[in-house]
Amino acid sequence: MRPLNAQLPDTNATGGVYYKETGRETEVFRHCFREKLPLLLKGPTGTGKSRYVEFMAAELQLPFLTVACHEETSTVDLLGRYIVKGDTTEWIDGPLTQAVRQGGIIYLDEIAEARPDVLVAIHSLTDHRRMLFLDRHHEVLRAPDDFMLVASFNPGYQRGYKELKPSTRQRFVTLSFDYPGQSIEAEILYGETEIDRAIANKLVGFAARVRGMAELGLAETASTRLLVDAAKLIHSGMPPRLSCTVAIAETLTDDPEVRQSLVDLINMTF
Amino acid sequence: MRPLNAQLPDTNATGGVYYKETGRETEVFRHCFREKLPLLLKGPTGTGKSRYVEFMAAELQLPFLTVACHEETSTVDLLGRYIVKGDTTEWIDGPLTQAVRQGGIIYLDEIAEARPDVLVAIHSLTDHRRMLFLDRHHEVLRAPDDFMLVASFNPGYQRGYKELKPSTRQRFVTLSFDYPGQSIEAEILYGETEIDRAIANKLVGFAARVRGMAELGLAETASTRLLVDAAKLIHSGMPPRLSCTVAIAETLTDDPEVRQSLVDLINMTF
Amino acid sequence: MRPLNAQLPDTNATGGVYYKETGRETEVFRHCFREKLPLLLKGPTGTGKSRYVEFMAAELQLPFLTVACHEETSTVDLLGRYIVKGDTTEWIDGPLTQAVRQGGIIYLDEIAEARPDVLVAIHSLTDHRRMLFLDRHHEVLRAPDDFMLVASFNPGYQRGYKELKPSTRQRFVTLSFDYPGQSIEAEILYGETEIDRAIANKLVGFAARVRGMAELGLAETASTRLLVDAAKLIHSGMPPRLSCTVAIAETLTDDPEVRQSLVDLINMTF
Amino acid sequence: MRPLNAQLPDTNATGGVYYKETGRETEVFRHCFREKLPLLLKGPTGTGKSRYVEFMAAELQLPFLTVACHEETSTVDLLGRYIVKGDTTEWIDGPLTQAVRQGGIIYLDEIAEARPDVLVAIHSLTDHRRMLFLDRHHEVLRAPDDFMLVASFNPGYQRGYKELKPSTRQRFVTLSFDYPGQSIEAEILYGETEIDRAIANKLVGFAARVRGMAELGLAETASTRLLVDAAKLIHSGMPPRLSCTVAIAETLTDDPEVRQSLVDLINMTF
Amino acid sequence: MRPLNAQLPDTNATGGVYYKETGRETEVFRHCFREKLPLLLKGPTGTGKSRYVEFMAAELQLPFLTVACHEETSTVDLLGRYIVKGDTTEWIDGPLTQAVRQGGIIYLDEIAEARPDVLVAIHSLTDHRRMLFLDRHHEVLRAPDDFMLVASFNPGYQRGYKELKPSTRQRFVTLSFDYPGQSIEAEILYGETEIDRAIANKLVGFAARVRGMAELGLAETASTRLLVDAAKLIHSGMPPRLSCTVAIAETLTDDPEVRQSLVDLINMTF
Amino acid sequence: MRPLNAQLPDTNATGGVYYKETGRETEVFRHCFREKLPLLLKGPTGTGKSRYVEFMAAELQLPFLTVACHEETSTVDLLGRYIVKGDTTEWIDGPLTQAVRQGGIIYLDEIAEARPDVLVAIHSLTDHRRMLFLDRHHEVLRAPDDFMLVASFNPGYQRGYKELKPSTRQRFVTLSFDYPGQSIEAEILYGETEIDRAIANKLVGFAARVRGMAELGLAETASTRLLVDAAKLIHSGMPPRLSCTVAIAETLTDDPEVRQSLVDLINMTF
Repeated sequence: MRPLNAQLPDTNATGGVYYKETGRETEVFRHCFREKLPLLLKGPTGTGKSRYVEFMAAELQLPFLTVACHEETSTVDLLGRYIVKGDTTEWIDGPLTQAVRQGGIIYLDEIAEARPDVLVAIHSLTDHRRMLFLDRHHEVLRAPDDFMLVASFNPGYQRGYKELKPSTRQRFVTLSFDYPGQSIEAEILYGETEIDRAIANKLVGFAARVRGMAELGLAETASTRLLVDAAKLIHSGMPPRLSCTVAIAETLTDDPEVRQSLVDLINMTF
Repeated sequence: MRPLNAQLPDTNATGGVYYKETGRETEVFRHCFREKLPLLLKGPTGTGKSRYVEFMAAELQLPFLTVACHEETSTVDLLGRYIVKGDTTEWIDGPLTQAVRQGGIIYLDEIAEARPDVLVAIHSLTDHRRMLFLDRHHEVLRAPDDFMLVASFNPGYQRGYKELKPSTRQRFVTLSFDYPGQSIEAEILYGETEIDRAIANKLVGFAARVRGMAELGLAETASTRLLVDAAKLIHSGMPPRLSCTVAIAETLTDDPEVRQSLVDLINMTF
Repeated sequence: MRPLNAQLPDTNATGGVYYKETGRETEVFRHCFREKLPLLLKGPTGTGKSRYVEFMAAELQLPFLTVACHEETSTVDLLGRYIVKGDTTEWIDGPLTQAVRQGGIIYLDEIAEARPDVLVAIHSLTDHRRMLFLDRHHEVLRAPDDFMLVASFNPGYQRGYKELKPSTRQRFVTLSFDYPGQSIEAEILYGETEIDRAIANKLVGFAARVRGMAELGLAETASTRLLVDAAKLIHSGMPPRLSCTVAIAETLTDDPEVRQSLVDLINMTF
Repeated sequence: MRPLNAQLPDTNATGGVYYKETGRETEVFRHCFREKLPLLLKGPTGTGKSRYVEFMAAELQLPFLTVACHEETSTVDLLGRYIVKGDTTEWIDGPLTQAVRQGGIIYLDEIAEARPDVLVAIHSLTDHRRMLFLDRHHEVLRAPDDFMLVASFNPGYQRGYKELKPSTRQRFVTLSFDYPGQSIEAEILYGETEIDRAIANKLVGFAARVRGMAELGLAETASTRLLVDAAKLIHSGMPPRLSCTVAIAETLTDDPEVRQSLVDLINMTF
Repeated sequence: MRPLNAQLPDTNATGGVYYKETGRETEVFRHCFREKLPLLLKGPTGTGKSRYVEFMAAELQLPFLTVACHEETSTVDLLGRYIVKGDTTEWIDGPLTQAVRQGGIIYLDEIAEARPDVLVAIHSLTDHRRMLFLDRHHEVLRAPDDFMLVASFNPGYQRGYKELKPSTRQRFVTLSFDYPGQSIEAEILYGETEIDRAIANKLVGFAARVRGMAELGLAETASTRLLVDAAKLIHSGMPPRLSCTVAIAETLTDDPEVRQSLVDLINMTF
Repeated sequence: MRPLNAQLPDTNATGGVYYKETGRETEVFRHCFREKLPLLLKGPTGTGKSRYVEFMAAELQLPFLTVACHEETSTVDLLGRYIVKGDTTEWIDGPLTQAVRQGGIIYLDEIAEARPDVLVAIHSLTDHRRMLFLDRHHEVLRAPDDFMLVASFNPGYQRGYKELKPSTRQRFVTLSFDYPGQSIEAEILYGETEIDRAIANKLVGFAARVRGMAELGLAETASTRLLVDAAKLIHSGMPPRLSCTVAIAETLTDDPEVRQSLVDLINMTF
């Protein structure tokens, strides 16, 4: 794996990142990379979107950089800015510029949250031009062959004004993520915490029941991440019921009745 | 083709850009250029508006510059700004100023998204005066004979506050863009990806059916761009059904039922 | 005509501007100028408000300057600002300050769009004081006898929050503009494009019918400006039906049915 | 009259300002001045509020300064600011600070429009403390005995969020302004324009009828100021009907029917 | 009384401030001061909240500083800021920092109006820590034993988004203020203006009637402050009816009918 | 306890902080700390969330830092910023950066109030990466083993737009806080104020009754903090009824009827 930037330690490197394929997602990634098509990952929290990109970057032996977007992420944050240093001003590349200069994968997490200039700035990178215009730096970069832009968003939030416009959506190939099947999920729990397999199976079964209970009205349901947290606490020696209550039930809801339903389910499980 | 700016590499140059005429749009462009009338292109995503301008610039052997407008594009971004350099400040032309100084075509993509000062700043460029007022630089530019302003917008978004005011609309000759006919679209697919003609025809037929299904309630329907993406993935060796699912179905909708309808249609096609 | 500013080329000069009087508007202008009363022009897009001021400035042999106001036009834009130059700051007059210093006519186009500080800053210029307070520059200017402020706004937009307050409205004498009569309008077309008089008459007749069709529900109807554009395209050799479609029908509406009605009317005309 | 500031010419001075008392307003002003009570003038546009303060300042031989407030008027505009000059920063007094330093009358026109910090900054000036805190300049000023703060607002705008809070209102003695009686108004017209007395009477009678017609639904009715404008145009030689139409009818309304009612009334009058 | 700051004259000092106790409020203040509990004063305009704090500061011989909060008051205004002076930047304490450094009482008037960072910045000052964190200045101040924070707000404004959050409210002991009883109020009028006692009684009786008339629908009713203003004008020689009309009736309402009711009541009183 | 920063005195140190466990919360904290899981505390005002973290930091002998978040807390406030010093700019660590550099516990109080960039900036700290990206300083920090992030929020405020997104919530183990049982609460009162135990019991009983009266419609009910305030005033010598009225009743409500109900309850108690 090539370092992305001498100044920036190769912190996103994931030599040994654990990822368990659940469909044909590695095949899709490889073809998109070969055809130079940008990729959009959609799906709920905690279904492994970020790990998947990290894993593919390691598989393809490419530098990898993540930018977590939020409501105030602007082009300046991604492309770069001038910094005043004593008497002169110095241009500092942003992460997107770095990635285009050096190749590799850049992952714009929750891209729909970013400011509109970000969505427009990537237009020229995501069509046949594959260019990045640094207007303020009077520079134009052509992306190298091994550059690939990956983005994610969560359609479940359903906030109209945060939907991506069709003119942006139609620039990406789109891959949908969901919770893994039970045997795969149990294997993930074991792989991450070395917890007893029987307890892993109980946790996964509990999660399946919670995910099936639409009547709970949860904003989002129990992710694999929450199961891993509960498994860690159990593995650390905390009683399973208390571990699941603080890692899962209290995290998923603030409604006393819904909480009680979850705790009842936990008590039935353990 | 003359370079637009020595500092800025001629990155938008489209010596061999592929464009397939679908109406009399080249005739309209040539007359507007001769009569010095600005041109507004309206129509949905992915119908070739940007390519058309790029193509006409190449045809007329004119420099060409694109500015993708967004909610925060302001006059300063288009006209230029002062930059502090050590002890002095230096004026830097923006892209519109560059284009007016040197002639050629400037394309303001999605102009309705820009801030209101942009819409007003082009008034003097789009009437009998053909002038650009750089108030902050105390300079007035008269556009050369070969300068032409082209803009685009997408009336389908139907957001009242983003409609162009009549006082802006009535400054442009307007050309409407829509999806091409099937035989032309198939030829575009073949021209861009060298995919098998039979598959190209299947893709085009599939798109025609999707476009005809108003009951799907899509924000915007399948563009030619999406068909090209699917064709590239198929050409790269990915199975057609998977290629169409990730390039088209998952891109067009997040609704599980609509997605299933599209996948059924894909399965019937391939 | 005196130059307004040595630095600013006399770009708004209209030595030979074409204007066709449609009422007693030149008489009103001359009396307002003599009595030092500011003038407000109201009416729809493309009825010649801007040309009228330009013409009167030429008639009265006065310097002339236009400022197109928009939602972000502020006092600083009109009055002036300090610019940092190396170690010192330098005051730069804005266009309104220039005009008050040197006399002549300043035209604030679409004044209702400007920010509220602009509307208040002209108060002292538009009553018996005829003064401009440059608070930031610690300077007060008394307008010379040949200074006149003219503004425009379009009451048709009907947006409550953009109406001028009575305390501003009642500072102006007000002149209403509307589309010219048919024979005058035909003469304007001929005067601007040297198009065949028969075609000019057809265009004018077509426009009269469009303006009479309230059932079309247009945001604003066909202005003289649109007729001039169509006439130019016809004069350039483009077929009349295509010329009117792109210059008028596509410009006035994005609704397919309304567009078809306009195209039918065009086809009946030519 | 003492000059307010050596740098600022005594531009608001009104040695010979024309003002016609309509009630006991000069008596109220003198008592407020003696008792050091701030005064609030309320009433519609063009009823002479500004002239009244100007006149009283001249009567009391006090310096006089007006600040027209708007939605963006802030404390910095009124109190002062630091300006960077070369290597140092220099404090520049704002108009309120100037007035408190030197005494005299400051008139905050349309104070309800100003930003909230302005309304709070005058609290300490308008109670028993009579002090101005220049926090940024680390200075506290005690108002001299001859300092008086006068403000105006127009309750007719009826916009809830622009009403003055009771905690501000109750700091002022309040004087209500309305249109003058007919004989006084005729005298004002004659005093300002030397128009024929018969025509002055006709104008005043016309205004009285307009003010009585609530059914016109005007945002604000004909002020004395509009009558003065019409009188000036008539005196300049313009026909009375045209003068009243452009100075009064077109200024008061954009509704064609209301406009016609006003023109009919004008035609009946002259 | 110790001066709060050598640079800032002791301007809020109230050696001889007139305050008339109406309940047990001095007892509450002394106990809060001894127990180091912050105090919140709530109640309508003009009931003496500010005077009470001023009086208690004088009684306890403590430095005293008032900050009138408004919608734009921020932490920077209260804690301090860096100022650029030539080549260096200098930290300037804000009023809250001054007060914590030197002890004494700081009064945050209408604290609910301030920006949210202000409400949070005082958290550490109002619990067992009694500390002020100057993050920007990398300094932490521990409040001396004689430091006390007092704040006020007016619950009558009833604007949900301006209510103090419970997590702020529950940090203060709360004292409620209302209009004084008639004999106390008459004594206040006499104490402040030396007006004839009979007239003082009439004014107080009039106020009592106004306060009892809920049917008037006043935003806020006649405060003691308004009575003092009326008393001053009467004492200055203005007729009582006119004095009460401009000081009270015109100040309390802009509604002609309500105003007439108040004037009738005035005429019945005098 | 290690000092967190030589420049910043160890002001949050709580060598002898009083905390009374009410459940198994110390066990949960120890397991989360061992498993490197971030912890979210939820519950109403004044239930001891802040004290709990302070206490655990002392128990674990870890440095401790609190940041009280508000609507304008941004990444810059937490991560750090460049300060201009003379000719150079100097990077200043924010509190989160300090804590990650040196280890220990950072407590982000009311994290849901912070700006969205804060919520996203902690993502990489709260998953398997445990890293902090200082993009502006081109530095990446890996959290030491003894670093732990704790946050709090109050779900009772129920303001949709201030709810934490599931993608943030699911990064934390969650612990719920509520009012303590009566005997524990009485012990807290005695522990903090040395008040007579009989009075402590009365206060606690009073609070239990208030908390049970949902019909009072209080925004938030009587916290332990309010009882402590009342106990302090009683201990200082103020009569119990007056103490409870100003510390509890006036603090909890501005509604006269609700206030009277509370006062009646106080009078029944003492």
